[in-house]
Amino acid sequence: MHPLRRHIEEVVSLEDAEFDFILSHFTPINKRKHQYLMQEGEWINNEFWVIKGCLRAYVLDELGKEHIIQFAVEDWWITDYQAFEKGMKTQIYVDCLEDSELLYITKENREKLSAELQKMQQFWARKTKLGYIASQNRVLSLLKNTAKERYELMCAQYPNIIQRVSKKMIASYLGVSRETLSRLY
Amino acid sequence: MHPLRRHIEEVVSLEDAEFDFILSHFTPINKRKHQYLMQEGEWINNEFWVIKGCLRAYVLDELGKEHIIQFAVEDWWITDYQAFEKGMKTQIYVDCLEDSELLYITKENREKLSAELQKMQQFWARKTKLGYIASQNRVLSLLKNTAKERYELMCAQYPNIIQRVSKKMIASYLGVSRETLSRLY
Repeated sequence: MHPLRRHIEEVVSLEDAEFDFILSHFTPINKRKHQYLMQEGEWINNEFWVIKGCLRAYVLDELGKEHIIQFAVEDWWITDYQAFEKGMKTQIYVDCLEDSELLYITKENREKLSAELQKMQQFWARKTKLGYIASQNRVLSLLKNTAKERYELMCAQYPNIIQRVSKKMIASYLGVSRETLSRLY
Repeated sequence: MHPLRRHIEEVVSLEDAEFDFILSHFTPINKRKHQYLMQEGEWINNEFWVIKGCLRAYVLDELGKEHIIQFAVEDWWITDYQAFEKGMKTQIYVDCLEDSELLYITKENREKLSAELQKMQQFWARKTKLGYIASQNRVLSLLKNTAKERYELMCAQYPNIIQRVSKKMIASYLGVSRETLSRLY
C-alpha cells in the first residue's frame, strides 16, 4: 500500500479510485541533506508530506540565533501554515537534515481536493485539530516545565526524532541552552 | 443580528433557517465572576462561546503556581480541546474574570451539526486552522522573544484583553515573572 494511503486511512477509509484521485494532486520531490524547501522572504504555496527523511523548520532571530519550530520525519506534514493559509511571505526556513523523499500539494490543489472529496476535508480537519492540540501542549510545556521535564517529555513523545537530530537542535526546539541540556544528559 | 450569527458569517454566509437550526444546538449559560466552567479532573463535553465577559484557562503546576494557557473575551471559543476531542479528563481550570454570558455546545451536538451542515464544518475547520497558527506563533514568541517583546506583541494583538486582566495574569500568560513585567512597565 502507498505510504500516503496508509497515512490517510488512519483517519478515513478510501476506495482505490479515490486514492488515485488524491495522489494525482500531489507531486513527488527529492531533496539532499542540507537543501532548503523554503527560506525567509519567499512566497509559500506548497505543503509537504515526508515519505522518507528528516527536516526541520526554524526562524533566525535578530542576533542570528536559530529557534526550531518543528521537526518532520516520515508521515509528517510541514510548511509555514501562516504563510500558506494567509498568502504571506514566510519568515521561516525549512531544510533537510537527511536526504529526503517528499510529496507536495499546492494550495490550489488542496482546496480543490477538499471541495471535491469530503473525506479529505475530514482528514485535514482532523490533522489540524491534532496539530492545534499538540501546539497548545507545547505552549504549556514551555510555560510550566523545567528543561529536564521538557526533554523527558520530548523523549517520550518523539523517540524517533531524538535519535536523528543533534543535541544542539533539541536544545533549540526545547528553548533551553545547549549547556543546560548537556548538564542534564 | 444575533452575535453568534455575525461571528459565523465572518467565515460562511447563512440563511435565516440555517442560523435557527445552528442556534438550536447551543445552550445559554450565565456565570458570575470567580465561578468555574471546568476544574482539573473533570470530564469535558462542552465547548463554550463568549457572548459577553472575560475568562481564563490555566493549569496549576506541582508547586501550585498558575500558568495561563488562554484568555477568552467576546467572540472567543474556550474549552480544553485535548480533553474535549479525546474524551479525557481535563488538567485545566477555566474561570470567569468578569460576570459572563456564554453559549455552549456539547460534543455530540457539534458532531451532529458538522455532519448535517457542511458550512459549520467549514467554519470550525477555519477556526481550528487560525487557532493552530496563533498557537504556533505563541510557541515561536516563547522561544525567541524577550519579555519586553512578548508584552508588546500581546498589546498589539489583544489590546482588549490587556485592559481587562491583571498584570499578574499577563505575566503568567507570557511566561515571565511579575517582577520582570513591572520593571518594564
